[in-house]
Order: sequence, then structure tokens, then C-alpha cells
Amino acid sequence: MIEVLDCTLRDGGYYTNWDFEENLTRNYFEAMEALPVSYIEIGYRSLLQNDYKGEYNFCPDYVIANARRYMPSKKIGVILNEKEIKPGDLRQLLGSCVGKLDFVRMAIDPANWKRAKSSAEEIKKMGFEVGFNVMYMSKWTAEYPSFIDDIAALNGVVDSFAMVDSFGSMYPHEVVEITCRVKSVLKCKIGFHGHNNTELAFANTLAAIEAGCDIVDATVTGMGRGAGNLRTELFLSYLSSKEGWNVDFNRLSTTVADFERMKEQYGWGTNLPYMVSGFNSLPQKDVMDWVTRRFYSINSILQALNNMKDKKGDNLKLPEFNSDKQHFEQAIIIGGGPSGANAAKAIKQLITKRKNKSMCLIHASSKNAGYYKDLDIPQFFCLVGNEGHRLEKVFADFDPDRISCVLPPYPRKMGTYVPEKLLGKSYELTDVTFSDLYQDSHTALALQIALELSVSTLYIAGYDGYDGLIGENERMLTQENEYLLSRIVDNNRQMEVATITATKYKGVKNLSVYGLLTE
Amino acid sequence: MIEVLDCTLRDGGYYTNWDFEENLTRNYFEAMEALPVSYIEIGYRSLLQNDYKGEYNFCPDYVIANARRYMPSKKIGVILNEKEIKPGDLRQLLGSCVGKLDFVRMAIDPANWKRAKSSAEEIKKMGFEVGFNVMYMSKWTAEYPSFIDDIAALNGVVDSFAMVDSFGSMYPHEVVEITCRVKSVLKCKIGFHGHNNTELAFANTLAAIEAGCDIVDATVTGMGRGAGNLRTELFLSYLSSKEGWNVDFNRLSTTVADFERMKEQYGWGTNLPYMVSGFNSLPQKDVMDWVTRRFYSINSILQALNNMKDKKGDNLKLPEFNSDKQHFEQAIIIGGGPSGANAAKAIKQLITKRKNKSMCLIHASSKNAGYYKDLDIPQFFCLVGNEGHRLEKVFADFDPDRISCVLPPYPRKMGTYVPEKLLGKSYELTDVTFSDLYQDSHTALALQIALELSVSTLYIAGYDGYDGLIGENERMLTQENEYLLSRIVDNNRQMEVATITATKYKGVKNLSVYGLLTE
Repeated sequence: MIEVLDCTLRDGGYYTNWDFEENLTRNYFEAMEALPVSYIEIGYRSLLQNDYKGEYNFCPDYVIANARRYMPSKKIGVILNEKEIKPGDLRQLLGSCVGKLDFVRMAIDPANWKRAKSSAEEIKKMGFEVGFNVMYMSKWTAEYPSFIDDIAALNGVVDSFAMVDSFGSMYPHEVVEITCRVKSVLKCKIGFHGHNNTELAFANTLAAIEAGCDIVDATVTGMGRGAGNLRTELFLSYLSSKEGWNVDFNRLSTTVADFERMKEQYGWGTNLPYMVSGFNSLPQKDVMDWVTRRFYSINSILQALNNMKDKKGDNLKLPEFNSDKQHFEQAIIIGGGPSGANAAKAIKQLITKRKNKSMCLIHASSKNAGYYKDLDIPQFFCLVGNEGHRLEKVFADFDPDRISCVLPPYPRKMGTYVPEKLLGKSYELTDVTFSDLYQDSHTALALQIALELSVSTLYIAGYDGYDGLIGENERMLTQENEYLLSRIVDNNRQMEVATITATKYKGVKNLSVYGLLTE
Repeated sequence: MIEVLDCTLRDGGYYTNWDFEENLTRNYFEAMEALPVSYIEIGYRSLLQNDYKGEYNFCPDYVIANARRYMPSKKIGVILNEKEIKPGDLRQLLGSCVGKLDFVRMAIDPANWKRAKSSAEEIKKMGFEVGFNVMYMSKWTAEYPSFIDDIAALNGVVDSFAMVDSFGSMYPHEVVEITCRVKSVLKCKIGFHGHNNTELAFANTLAAIEAGCDIVDATVTGMGRGAGNLRTELFLSYLSSKEGWNVDFNRLSTTVADFERMKEQYGWGTNLPYMVSGFNSLPQKDVMDWVTRRFYSINSILQALNNMKDKKGDNLKLPEFNSDKQHFEQAIIIGGGPSGANAAKAIKQLITKRKNKSMCLIHASSKNAGYYKDLDIPQFFCLVGNEGHRLEKVFADFDPDRISCVLPPYPRKMGTYVPEKLLGKSYELTDVTFSDLYQDSHTALALQIALELSVSTLYIAGYDGYDGLIGENERMLTQENEYLLSRIVDNNRQMEVATITATKYKGVKNLSVYGLLTE
């Protein structure tokens, strides 16, 4: 008889930083109470951490009491991050949960399973059912060849042992093989926690069941780290149709609808980068960060994944930027905002007007570059991530002697992609000196270029900011640009910095390019 | 050596009615040309039909020429709907494609395979490679037990034979079994076309390959009827990682991004209704219609699917509405718009003012009903689809002697769900007499109730219509309401009909409830 463990809030919390609206959690708890789900893992339990995380990362006692109120008939539990636990912490962490929680699981790196065993013994003494949730299943055979035999030592210690396909990279036949081996060693209940990178979470779960797995992990709408998990509604529909389980589809669809609405905002589920990370057993932590920030193009992410797969941290060391200590009196940074195009005529006139000064242009974005192709002053292009493709098209119209590309310092986390014909014109910075944050961004690059060129006057155009309602990405970009602009102003008092087109960004003097023309 | 057949435009056309933007198709064709995909099925080829369908449902010659221009190195083909073909049509349908198309497939009901064989022979004579695409794979064994043996007659006639998991209901072990049997009978290439209702499209494809399948059907982002197909990008990522195929991920991700944007609009992919239809081998045509119109709640759809599964057309015949020929002089229909709540006070005063008339209230929607709970006149509730749950909460506050529910005529396509405690108070219409369209809608029901009650004056409140930018659903609802309102006015000249709250709907006299109070 299969049992279902739902861990929607715990694994879904990776998307919401473990904050959930009360209405949603209540509907969810009520649905779980009504559905044939045996275990509900409501979140992580942790001690205070240095960065903010929400309610369901700590599960304070009132959260547990609330869950119990709505789910009186269910086994309720939390999971601990084994690597964060010091053995002395367990009493403090779990003492007040005794009698209130049914089970405690631990997320465990297989390298640490012995240490985890000691914690398990202590947790068990406190009266909880104890579960192991052991990660990196796809690496057990190759990297921990004796692991499965060794864990015979867990008999009598743990009540359940879940195998976690952390990378979403397993195939059904591999799941069958490992499940059979684990099953032959351990007497406790065996669980399977799939990830859906390659859309095999359900097939792998069926394979695990075929091989004798007892507990299946699932989350509503598959909400979970990276590509997410087996969907609870899929597995319950299966059990309803094939095993005749009694499923209250009204309750189920009500909570599914709640999470579907959140999914439109956060967009979990698999996509090309998660597929590639899955097929190559690469961690989804970085991929999730890249994908959800929507800052990098899919191409950049795929490039980075290919580098990871080939174990290349980076694939290209470039010559140092400005090793010959060029210097310009004035520079104009052109951003990607509409004014970078609208004001192009005025900016070009300004450059003509100041032809007695040494001037250069710095393109923070490739977007508006085309408007400046006919200028005869040096132009620098910031190349972040995988923009080489876009730049390739832009470059075709430029005087090749006037242009060069500048990349962030080596090694670049996302790898380096420079189109072949730009190779001789591409340089890297040695450092970003004026800011500790956002060092990889277009704006940081553009500002650092101005510093390296020791300009006395720096004008900035095409940094319009955003009007009206803005989304998460625009908000993040605003924050980033304001931070960087304030750093450059504060740290470089000898340089005159001004935006010269209309802008919503604060903290920098805002002149008008049109006024500079009549000056 | 596996070959890939991409049929994104053909199968994805079910969502866009086979119209696609030119930029998108060009990017797609260029990507296909660059990727290791052998066959591109660009659409249906059909003769003129009675209802509008777009470019890729007919694939006129210029469409084929355009596809060829961008994909000079690929095998390009179309698919025919076998059941629509008359043998005499083939020359007219395909004559101008000779030398321009490489292959022609036919979508075939297994019941018609012999008839399809004759067409295949003729198509082959014209010089095309001919493919069978045989549907309902999950029913072959039970409903067509000799089918697989019989199709030995296709040897020498067809160049490929694809097995279509039409309902998305197959399990990998079943795919292996059927593929092996087909493979033992046919000498041509064997293909597999999966659907992703239960997220097993990829696992089933791997199973088909294991059993000797030669050609795999896929679509970019899985775009395809209902829950959609195996994703091209998933399968190519697999082939790249596991088989070392050379995949240009830049090209691939560019076309994937185009289709992902469309997916946000059309929302293909699986969900609870598709899962239930999949697990029970139910056709996704109706489900797709229900899901994409977003008119019915998930609960209604699940109810309808359960009825289908149990082979119940409908599960409840109710007593006829108004069999005792009640009559009211005046009725007020309350819709779900904000004015149905905002004007509640005025409407209730109007009812008090006219207490010398016999009056009743008809709730087209349950949304605003609560505002009218303290009235002592009869109130009728329109119960469409699965609204019973919502009504259950609303009803609690009403005087039980004053209320009744009215449902559309029997049998109801979506089945009937009436909460138990409302059963004695629920009736069905025998007919919707004043309109040929939208007979199942809330508004049709409300208006028909007024007709059945032979009211002389019908007031309508809470039909506000929509302001500003509206989406597809609001547009459809507007069209529906305007049509129904104009029908009731045109067909019932003896009844005075007027909206009495602010409305954007045209064609009905618009009075003011506030004016009626000062009259």
C-alpha cells in the first residue's frame, strides 16, 4: 500500500522564500486533510539565520499548531537541513515540538550520512518518527560506491529512507535498480522524491513503486525548487483511476487553483535550462537563480551549463582592458532606455560640439548602439553573459577600428561567449573597484570602464527608469542601477557624473543634453 | 538511428486555429533547418471547409514553397484528415504539391484503416512518401483485437506507421508491448506520437525507442491539442546529452522562446482535467474546448469527465421547472457585475415600492445573491455546470421557502451536480426557446426563466459589461450577453425589457433604478 507525502510548502518555499498567504495555506491544509495523503511536511525547521526567510522555513510552534488544527487526522512533520545542524542544537530546535509533530526528516548529503545517523538517534529519542531524505541519488553509484551497503547501519534507527533525485536526472531503469538495492538493505519504509527536469518525475515514481517503494513525495502543481516535483494532483488522479482511491476532486482542484495562480507569477516547472541541467546531473540551485531573475538570456544559461558539464569554470581568458592606459577627458554611457535612441541626435551634436575634448562612448546595452554607428570616436561595448550574438549584428555597421568589447573580470560565472570575429577586439576588466554588489551587470561594467579611462566628466544617457506599475524584474534592475550610480558618485568625487536624459533614477545630478547644446 | 519528426505548427494549430505570425514561423523554420530534425510536418492540407481555419490547416502552395525556402535540406510534409478525404479528391488536394512535398501522412481512425490503405496507394503513386498516423493506440487491443495482425497488408504500401497515444493514457510497459507487436508485423519505419496528459510523453517515447521505434514525433514547447506533446527541446536535449547529437542550442532556444510567449497566452500543457481524461482514456477534444474557454470551473469539467468515464451522459433528471404555471407580473434579473451589489439597496426599495405587483428575483450568478437574502419574494437561482458548491454557501442565509434552483434542459453536456440539500428545490427547463446559441449559459437560463414565468416587465441589473482593455474571455462573454439580450428583446415584443443599472451592453433599453424610485 503506497503512502503519499506532500511537501508543497517546504519545497515550494524555494520560490516564495517560504512566505505563503494565510488563505492559501488554509485551503491547502483543508484539502490535505480531506485527501488520501498520509504525511504532510509543512516546512523546514531551522534556528535563526543571517538572511531573511519566511514562516515555513522556521515553522515556529504556532505554525505547527495551526497546521494541526486543520489536519487533525494527518501525520505532520518538518524537515531539517542536516548540514546546518549542530548536535547540541536539536533539543533547542525540536524540544517544543514534542507531542505536536509526528515526524522529522533530514535532508542529507550522502557524504554526511554517519553524522546524520547520530542526529537521527537523538531525534528518535525525543519521540519523533525519523526520516532520511538523502540527496544526489544519481551520484550514489559512481561517487559513493559503498553507500548503499553501509546504510544497513540505519536499520532500527530511521523509520523511513527517501531517495532524492536532486538533479532530476534519473531514468526509470536506474530508479528500479537503486530502489531494489536499497530495499534489500533497509527494513524501514523507502521513499522516492523525484524532480521533473526531464518530465520523468512521474515515470520514475512509477518505477520506484514497481521496485517496492512505500512512500511517494509530491507537491501541489509540482511547486518545488527549480523544475519542481511530481504533482500531487497527477499522482492522486492516477491512484483514483488505477487503484480506485477515493479522491475528493473538488477539494483537490480548489487548492490546485490557488497554486496555479501563484505559478503564473513564479513560473516553476521545467524549461530548456532545467532540462540541460537534468540530463547532465548539474545542480539546479544556480540554474534556478539564473532563470528566476530573468536577467540572463537562455543562451547565457545554456552556455554556463555547458561549461559546468565540461567542468570548465570559464573557457576564455582575455587580454586586460586598457593595459596601455588610454585616457579620455569625457565619456558618455548609453543605456538601453528609450531616451538612448530618442536623444541620439542631440548626443551626437554634443560630441561634435566638444570635438576639442577627447571623448568616447560606452554602450552599456546593445539596444541603442545602432544609432551611434556613424560616430568617429572610440566606442566601447559591455559584453555580459551571452550578448555576443546580439552584438554581432550590431557590429556589422561600425567602423572596426573604433570599437572594442569589454567583459567582466575572469573567471566569469556564466562562462564567456565572444563571437569569433570580435575576439581580437575583446578585453576583460581586472576588477570592479567601486562597488561590492552587482559586479557582473552591464551598468557596473560601463561605470568601471569610465573609471579605467580616468574620465573627468561622465555623462549617462538612456537610463530612463520605469514608469507606473513595475514588475519584479524592473524593480530589481532599478535597485541595482540606483545602487551602482550612487556608489560611483560617492566613491569618485573627482569625477563629474551626470545623467543627461530624463530619468527616474535618484542620486545623480540630472542635466539635460539639450541644455548642454545651448550652454 | 532515431529520427525526429517535428509537427509543431500542425498540432499546435489546435490552439491558434492554425494561424501563426510570419516572424514566428520563419524563426521556427530556420531553427528546424539548423537542428537534427529529419521531418517537418508543417500543417494539415484540406479542401475548403465550412468554418474558418487558418493558413496551416490548408497549407496552400505558397506556404509550402515558403517552408521549402527556409528548410532546403529537410523532408517537408503535410497531414491529411483521413475521414474528410474522398478518394476522388486526392489529385485535386495534392496534385500541385508533387515534387514540392516529401511526405504525406494521414490521421486515421483504426476502424478506417482499409479505406486509408486505398488512399495511401494513390498518394504513393503520386510520388510522395506515405505515412499512417493511427489514433487511439490505447484502444487497439481491446476494441480492434485483430488490427495489429491485419495491418501486415500495409507492407509495401506505407513508408511509415506512427502509433498515436490520442488520449495521453498509455503507460511505458503498454507502449513497449504494442510497439514490439507492430514492429513484428510491419517492415516500414515505426513512429510514436505521444501526448502529455499524464506527463508520460517522454517516458513513453523512451519505451517506444527501447522497443524499436524509428521516428519520434515532437513539438516545440509541446504545443499541441489538449495537454500537448513531447517537447522537441526536451527530446533534443536528451539526444545531445545521451547520444552526443550536435544540437544548436542558440537556434533551439530562440524558437522555444517564441512559442513560450504564445504559451503564456494559450496555456497548453497538462492540468487536472487533462490528467483525468488521460488516466481514463477519454477524448481531449471536449476537454480542450472546456478548458480553453475558461467558462466552466475545473469542478464542472471533472464532473463531466467522471460522467463520461462512467458512460453516463447525465446523471440526474430533475422535475420540470414551473410545471404549475406560476406567473409574476415583474421580475428582476441580478447579474454578477459590481452594480448588482452597488444597487442592491435601490433594487430592494424598488421591490418594496411595487409590493402591489407580484415580483420575483432571478439570480443569473451566485456572486451578488447574498445582498438580497432578506427579501421576502421568491428568488430563483440559475445553476450552470458545477456551481452547486458556491450556491451551497450562499443559500445558508436564505429563507428556504423562498428559493429554488433552475438548471438547463436535460441531458446536460457537463452533467449535473446539485448539492443534496438543494435537491428538493431544483428544477430543469424543458427548452430554451428564444435563442439558438449559448443555451447553456447563465444569461440564457435567467431570461428563459422570465419567459416561463410570463412576466410583463423584466428588469436586468448587474450586467455592467467591461471597461477598457478586455481579454478573450470578457470579449466572448460580451458577445454572448449582447446576443442573448437582443434575442429576448426581438422575440418577445409583448414583454417590457430594460436594464436598470449602468451597462455597456447595447440593444436593450437602459433605465435607471434610481429613476424608477422617483417615478
